[in-house]
Amino acid sequence: MTTLDQLPIRDDLRGRTPYGAPQLDVAVRLNTNENSYPVPDAVVEAIAKAVQAELRDLNRYPDRDAVALRTDLAGYLGHGLTAAHVWAANGSNEVQQQLLQAFAGPGRSALGFGPSYSMHPLLAAGTGTRWIGALRDPDFGLTPESAVEQIDRHAPDLVFLCSPNNPTGTALDPSVVEAVLASAPGMVVVDEAYAEFARPGTPSALAALPGHPRLVVTRTMSKAFGFAGGRLGYLAADPAVVDAVQLVRLPYHLSALTQAAARAALAHRAALLVTVDAIKEQRDRIVTTLRSRGVRVADSDANFVLFEVGGDQHAAWQRLLDRGVLVRDVGLAGWLRVTAGTESETDAFLGALQ
Amino acid sequence: MTTLDQLPIRDDLRGRTPYGAPQLDVAVRLNTNENSYPVPDAVVEAIAKAVQAELRDLNRYPDRDAVALRTDLAGYLGHGLTAAHVWAANGSNEVQQQLLQAFAGPGRSALGFGPSYSMHPLLAAGTGTRWIGALRDPDFGLTPESAVEQIDRHAPDLVFLCSPNNPTGTALDPSVVEAVLASAPGMVVVDEAYAEFARPGTPSALAALPGHPRLVVTRTMSKAFGFAGGRLGYLAADPAVVDAVQLVRLPYHLSALTQAAARAALAHRAALLVTVDAIKEQRDRIVTTLRSRGVRVADSDANFVLFEVGGDQHAAWQRLLDRGVLVRDVGLAGWLRVTAGTESETDAFLGALQ
Repeated sequence: MTTLDQLPIRDDLRGRTPYGAPQLDVAVRLNTNENSYPVPDAVVEAIAKAVQAELRDLNRYPDRDAVALRTDLAGYLGHGLTAAHVWAANGSNEVQQQLLQAFAGPGRSALGFGPSYSMHPLLAAGTGTRWIGALRDPDFGLTPESAVEQIDRHAPDLVFLCSPNNPTGTALDPSVVEAVLASAPGMVVVDEAYAEFARPGTPSALAALPGHPRLVVTRTMSKAFGFAGGRLGYLAADPAVVDAVQLVRLPYHLSALTQAAARAALAHRAALLVTVDAIKEQRDRIVTTLRSRGVRVADSDANFVLFEVGGDQHAAWQRLLDRGVLVRDVGLAGWLRVTAGTESETDAFLGALQ
Repeated sequence: MTTLDQLPIRDDLRGRTPYGAPQLDVAVRLNTNENSYPVPDAVVEAIAKAVQAELRDLNRYPDRDAVALRTDLAGYLGHGLTAAHVWAANGSNEVQQQLLQAFAGPGRSALGFGPSYSMHPLLAAGTGTRWIGALRDPDFGLTPESAVEQIDRHAPDLVFLCSPNNPTGTALDPSVVEAVLASAPGMVVVDEAYAEFARPGTPSALAALPGHPRLVVTRTMSKAFGFAGGRLGYLAADPAVVDAVQLVRLPYHLSALTQAAARAALAHRAALLVTVDAIKEQRDRIVTTLRSRGVRVADSDANFVLFEVGGDQHAAWQRLLDRGVLVRDVGLAGWLRVTAGTESETDAFLGALQ
């Protein structure tokens, strides 16, 4: 039998294991920040109908530029955006990979402030981009001063900001985005995968797009829309940025089914986004309850909560799993991350933790 | 307005235009080697049902490893292959991109024998891989001696073979694959996107997989299956190769809809692949008719034909377009490529050419 080590894989991949949380069959799965609510029947019907309309012509390649979908996404985002400002791909990971291919890659660098979304450095590695692991404050915050100081020191070609930040949960103050835009020598990518869950008064970086052609905001339909299985990520930026990613995107990367299903979901967004308020309620309940128990918890603008278990977090993760609740060990010593889902899932989590 | 040139894109992308044939609304579209036959009603119904069954749970991420789909693909390929030998992605472009990320990339090289599939060098560029443009013989053939000589000279980390070759149409003799496997220092990727259309007696490189862990055969459902809009490419190789691409694949790259739709299409492959014989008949008719008119034509094992127009092929392309027939100018001086479709499409093409 041939082993991986016997193949001529790249040296920087040797010894690595594939990215991804364990896909375990557990009653209460609160580990990947999925939306716990299944797609409502009316939306199922609408997506089914939209997909079915595409099937006869599946022998033809899809619209390579996904113009209708991008138009709908722009309409959802508002802020005066049009299809020319929006680009979509199979998940925001693919969008970010394309951004790295266009603006970073071999001989260039990307910087992110950890702890943050662990795919950012992996996407950098996969595109031959040198990764610069900058740091958030010990309390997981990020001040404009600290961000600017670290950017000035490293002069990266691309900066990742993550707001609300995964896995800590807190949104960035707009002053951080402004300061980074003013100091970064290259592109600034704000990953807003969880934007819809932000607490009131938390502005999106979308508001900063006018006059900032090097700013890119990435979003996903996986979370608020409950569309994780449909794989649809997107970005909003200056139209020139959309031109740039089209130089590196794979032709026909978005299937006709993906385009149709995502459009149907967007058309029925009221029925889907109604889950957001319910999830925020559970998120706030987790934060409040844990704090009332004396547990340290990061402020959350997302559909998850980072909480301190102290000591060996992996042992704590296993104990919760033994009680039927799957949360995420993000490799942060002493902390675990739990997704906010339904009321009964919160019950199960809070019960198991006690 | 910001232009692309004002953004800090990579220098190697400056001045480039996005890859892709013009998507023009013409009656007879024979430019992208699509299968001209729409999906039959019974298969439409089966795919619709399979997709619908996924929609309620679209809030959950899909099976990251697509095990059921890979099992079905292995069953289709035969040759004793199992899910462990097979990997799938959104089109064979994405499969090949992953192979380059794992086995080539920055500081490494990939070699292909042109004229061949024009995405291979673009995928190399997109992954930071140095591209080595080796050459086929002037008659578009490739002998074992010529292939080995060029590989010995350049010692590439990855070799692309394309059989049947796009855009010329002819399959490689198995002796070429054998000679390349014996001499190449790294991986050997045989792109068999058009394998199902090969003339009788043309073996697939799948037969060479046992004992060759550095051999990878890539396939697609876009052509013979008429599933271009569904975006499903795959590879067969030693299980260690599948382990390797899992180190670079984006997590959850294949949507639940793609997995379900592709499985339904595979389950109804008899109804889909019945088009292959009809297309081969038209392909052979194009070859025979053009040769009877004294036109030089490359032997074709694919669903397209490369034919000589002499002189300015782009002017000839435009004249055909003016008569309502869209073919492909692949940038090969004096030659054009036409897809073999339905009988009436062949009629239109042969009439327009005359």
